[in-house]
Amino acid sequence: MRIRLIASAALLFASHAVAQPQHGLNLMPMPTSVEHGVGRLAVDQSFSVAIAGFKDARLERGIDRFIADLSRQTGMFLKQKPVDSPTPTLLIHAVYGRDRVQSLSEDESYELVISESGAKLTPPSPLGVLHGLQTFLQLVETTTNGFAVPVVTIKDRPRFPWRGLLIDVGRHFIPLDVLKRNLDGMAAVKMNVLHWHLYDNEGFRVESKRFPRLQEVGSDGLYYTQAEIREFVAYAHDRGIRVVPEFEMPGHSRSLLVGYPELASAPGPYKVEPGGADAVMDPTRQETYKFIDKLIEEMARLFPDDYFHIGGDEVNGSQWDANSKIQAFIHSHGMKSNQDLQAYFNQRLQKILSKHHKIMMGWDEVMHPDLPKSVVVQSWRGQQSLAIAAQQGYSSLLSFGYYLDLMWLASRHYAVDPMSGAAASLNPEEKSRILGGEACMWSEWVTPENIDSRIWPRNAAIAERLWSSPEVQDLGSMYARLDKLSRRLEWLGLTHRSFMAPAFYRMAGTNDIFALRTLAEVVEPVKDYTRMNSLKTVWDFRGPMNRLVDIARPESDQARRLRDAVQTYIGSGYKDKAAEGEIRTRLAAWRDNDARLHPLLEQSFLLNELAPLSEDLSTLAAAGLLALEYLDKSTPSPSSWRAQQLALVERAKTPKADLLLMVVEPVQQLIERSEGQPQKP
Amino acid sequence: MRIRLIASAALLFASHAVAQPQHGLNLMPMPTSVEHGVGRLAVDQSFSVAIAGFKDARLERGIDRFIADLSRQTGMFLKQKPVDSPTPTLLIHAVYGRDRVQSLSEDESYELVISESGAKLTPPSPLGVLHGLQTFLQLVETTTNGFAVPVVTIKDRPRFPWRGLLIDVGRHFIPLDVLKRNLDGMAAVKMNVLHWHLYDNEGFRVESKRFPRLQEVGSDGLYYTQAEIREFVAYAHDRGIRVVPEFEMPGHSRSLLVGYPELASAPGPYKVEPGGADAVMDPTRQETYKFIDKLIEEMARLFPDDYFHIGGDEVNGSQWDANSKIQAFIHSHGMKSNQDLQAYFNQRLQKILSKHHKIMMGWDEVMHPDLPKSVVVQSWRGQQSLAIAAQQGYSSLLSFGYYLDLMWLASRHYAVDPMSGAAASLNPEEKSRILGGEACMWSEWVTPENIDSRIWPRNAAIAERLWSSPEVQDLGSMYARLDKLSRRLEWLGLTHRSFMAPAFYRMAGTNDIFALRTLAEVVEPVKDYTRMNSLKTVWDFRGPMNRLVDIARPESDQARRLRDAVQTYIGSGYKDKAAEGEIRTRLAAWRDNDARLHPLLEQSFLLNELAPLSEDLSTLAAAGLLALEYLDKSTPSPSSWRAQQLALVERAKTPKADLLLMVVEPVQQLIERSEGQPQKP
Repeated sequence: MRIRLIASAALLFASHAVAQPQHGLNLMPMPTSVEHGVGRLAVDQSFSVAIAGFKDARLERGIDRFIADLSRQTGMFLKQKPVDSPTPTLLIHAVYGRDRVQSLSEDESYELVISESGAKLTPPSPLGVLHGLQTFLQLVETTTNGFAVPVVTIKDRPRFPWRGLLIDVGRHFIPLDVLKRNLDGMAAVKMNVLHWHLYDNEGFRVESKRFPRLQEVGSDGLYYTQAEIREFVAYAHDRGIRVVPEFEMPGHSRSLLVGYPELASAPGPYKVEPGGADAVMDPTRQETYKFIDKLIEEMARLFPDDYFHIGGDEVNGSQWDANSKIQAFIHSHGMKSNQDLQAYFNQRLQKILSKHHKIMMGWDEVMHPDLPKSVVVQSWRGQQSLAIAAQQGYSSLLSFGYYLDLMWLASRHYAVDPMSGAAASLNPEEKSRILGGEACMWSEWVTPENIDSRIWPRNAAIAERLWSSPEVQDLGSMYARLDKLSRRLEWLGLTHRSFMAPAFYRMAGTNDIFALRTLAEVVEPVKDYTRMNSLKTVWDFRGPMNRLVDIARPESDQARRLRDAVQTYIGSGYKDKAAEGEIRTRLAAWRDNDARLHPLLEQSFLLNELAPLSEDLSTLAAAGLLALEYLDKSTPSPSSWRAQQLALVERAKTPKADLLLMVVEPVQQLIERSEGQPQKP
Repeated sequence: MRIRLIASAALLFASHAVAQPQHGLNLMPMPTSVEHGVGRLAVDQSFSVAIAGFKDARLERGIDRFIADLSRQTGMFLKQKPVDSPTPTLLIHAVYGRDRVQSLSEDESYELVISESGAKLTPPSPLGVLHGLQTFLQLVETTTNGFAVPVVTIKDRPRFPWRGLLIDVGRHFIPLDVLKRNLDGMAAVKMNVLHWHLYDNEGFRVESKRFPRLQEVGSDGLYYTQAEIREFVAYAHDRGIRVVPEFEMPGHSRSLLVGYPELASAPGPYKVEPGGADAVMDPTRQETYKFIDKLIEEMARLFPDDYFHIGGDEVNGSQWDANSKIQAFIHSHGMKSNQDLQAYFNQRLQKILSKHHKIMMGWDEVMHPDLPKSVVVQSWRGQQSLAIAAQQGYSSLLSFGYYLDLMWLASRHYAVDPMSGAAASLNPEEKSRILGGEACMWSEWVTPENIDSRIWPRNAAIAERLWSSPEVQDLGSMYARLDKLSRRLEWLGLTHRSFMAPAFYRMAGTNDIFALRTLAEVVEPVKDYTRMNSLKTVWDFRGPMNRLVDIARPESDQARRLRDAVQTYIGSGYKDKAAEGEIRTRLAAWRDNDARLHPLLEQSFLLNELAPLSEDLSTLAAAGLLALEYLDKSTPSPSSWRAQQLALVERAKTPKADLLLMVVEPVQQLIERSEGQPQKP
């Protein structure tokens, strides 16, 4: 699932206007309804949990985890196990149990009532218990008297039943411990599907006992054993997360064909190394379906979920065009195109999946009049195709707008709503076919080291979009809560914040990384497919990933804060002294940073490329400070000075070392405003 | 192993004088010999390892780990496996294999020769391979052209064969993943023994199949299963680390007696909860030895190491005194004291251990004329007892001076040499009985969250003392290398640095933790047993561990840097402008910190107690700045002002919130010096 086109930005501007309840609680995703009371319930060492109603080992494990999480979060040693008490701090009462295999239709709602004397969590099902416990954890505050949760009544249920995260382990292998901590993060924001993109051209990551050459020659030795997968799926299930496997066919499957070249549409041989052919399976041969049948039989047992993703995107027709037997097949079967051939392939695939009790899923290219409507369509190409799928009767999911690898800001993902755009004009029945969406973490530029930082915290904004009411839109509130959440996620072992210091240390080769960090905090990796497109020849992702572009966060908090302060300052007619002071402090630090960073830049091959960027930062900051002087004194800046500075601004807009300097735009505003005719924004 | 007495500081001042080779390499522990060449060997993506000579699965796993570590350290995707090439980047040639059970006498030496065209690691045994690979990792530098290692010839072997770290999992349970990352840290500094203090009064942490009540009622449910222990011991063995279990007898064993009170010297019942009796086993009953025999038989199989520690320290005689049957036994057997009874117990214990092919170890109280010389004595009470043990013919180990829980500075541990003090006057044969030493991490104030920060980086200074030549003494070099090492350890997953931010966030309940961090960086927890002694009634360690004293690092780098700068400034006759500038910058930031921190302090029950400390810091910093003014202008400060400031200094010396403000002493120096008669230091 990969595209070279730049996604259209047209649909993706944020909507700021819609109001929402401002209850001041740091909850993410925002619950359906929150009724605020007065007072607090203390959370101290006497904290206890009791279970009434339904109870099983899985529920008990969930509660054990909750107690451990609460212990970690508060630094208190709490009672390890639920107690048998009529007056526990938290009483949990679920009505019925869970299916052996978590289903799409399972009730996830819960009600959490907190009074000064105790809390009650009463969901119908254990899934609601898990969600309610996450809400409880987010409610715990550090107060003047101790830890506490506010008196509150929360009723909550998800807007969409399918709230997923795709992780691609094909391009770069991601070890299970890294995936597990990300499952913990998903559970914290109430996401319920891990879409496991298990292989791609670059590597096959699942052990097959039936076809061992899949992992043996189709990978670099890095894959998951079946025992590991079983344990991982159980880990996810414990956390209320379904695992939907993706087995890409007929394209994106070079690694599968390395060991079984006879299934390909051209002779081979194939290698997992980059630069090889963009191989496609041959849908005209019986052997292909025999192989797929056996593979799916084996994998259907390994992955208990009802759904099974077969990819189906970006099929490169060149191998089919070049194969006369395949072309003859197309004609003899009355097909008009390669698309028809793929539809034929998908139909047969669907029957195989159905035989093994699986519901087929595919990317939006699989849509075809011949395909049964039971197939679930995942839209990556646009909101248009999502609407079409729903119109045609397919259940569908949105991923367009949720690609984490494109390095968009959280606000941009947040503005993408599965029901907006083309879907807005669907009728209710059509709308009901839209199941939700999935964030996608494609791993071309992702390693076990930086993956957490690519997923978090931005993924939480998508999780909120898929869980909360569409009216929840306020960006100020979203960022405030995201910031809190981001820190909370560290208690789960996620390294999206902590991974940076060791990486800076590697880059600098010295302990004084202050100036490097300062620069790193105001840059962002280039967006969309700019970095991919800059690859000169073949797409090869095996190179080192130790440059600042691999470490810098997709979204600069510092730049956002500068933007906000500049907005406030301009909005106040240059009178807001607090905002001015904040701008001044930031700009002064950046102005002086290059002098501090420069000696480092010269010592390290990894920092060398940052010299122009560091210079730009200091130059711009100095210009911004001068502009501020003019504005402060209400003296118009000389136009020649402005022209000169704006030329610098333009220069600073060019990406350098695959990085964007994110303070350019607010500084530009200051310079432009210093012309001396204060305008209302 | 615990003491209420303040350890004598007499032996423990640092020796600064001894010279050492200054080759400028960031190696820790310092190798035996380093011959510096010219040039470098590049470490890039073509990096490869080949194995000649001896080869087995364990060695190959070690090399796989090395490649993974090097990949992580450099951010490069390196070849996963050793290659079959005559010209690899690194050729490893071991002569012979390892024993199934790692022995004390195994050769750990290695030779590492790096030229511009390749590196050769030629140790006799795989243990040397592991050590040499760690040295190689430490040699990798970030240069202007890429990663590289310098051309160098290193010959290295340890000074002592026993270089251990004790971790107490009795007081607070430490999960295996935390222990494992600490094993990785130990391997990085070439330590080779984990002394696993498996239980204490507060909890029994090993599963016994024979006596399941040990873990079932003797713990809070937190213990290691036998399968986990086997896997853990294998993990350690892979890293060249022996695991020596400690089963405390006859004292410090309340948790053992909870399930088996019939073994105690008083009727019981016993509980793991604090406040219970300081129970001691009854050495006069046959049943006691039958139980021990069976338990040791079971545990001897679980822990393959030759050595088995039986504790034997701090036996509280009160239960024996109060038991007339025991007193009668003492008299009827011609014993003179409880000590004699314990010696009798130890003799019988030793026979049981011997039957199960184990060498007995015990704390220094076990020494007694009746005890065979095969027993290994571990000195915790002083260097005197180490010398006595060696004189009497016992093999012995030093732990006195290496207690990490006492919150000493690294320099203070570093100054403790097993061969110094009383041991200095031993004859060569006696000296040869001193096997080495062990750092001790007692866990009264330790949790899975903060344990890494209590062990690292200080433990590395002890590791160097036990590995390197006694001439390696320079504190400047030690701290420079320790600082580098501390950052490298993060690549192994140790959280001694990264755990602080989430903890500050918990304390503050807000994202702006800058001022809190500033304060935290200049304080240290109170030393020795001050915190323990401040416990009013019983020793209860189950309370929350979320105060700053639980988070602040045992050694303040910021305070050390201020001390160094003040030393330099005074030493220069107040002329060194760089030092003066550094002092000024630090003091100015601290002076302004209280204003910034104050609003936070009022919002959180965890920060409240820090108000006086924060005030002291700002007041002192302001005084220091004024003193600096006087010194800078060569104007004597008014004596009334000085008196006033020195009164503040005295006030600031009192611990607050169990914390010491570590900048007091250098500020005091500045104030005193501002009297105006510059003295040579």
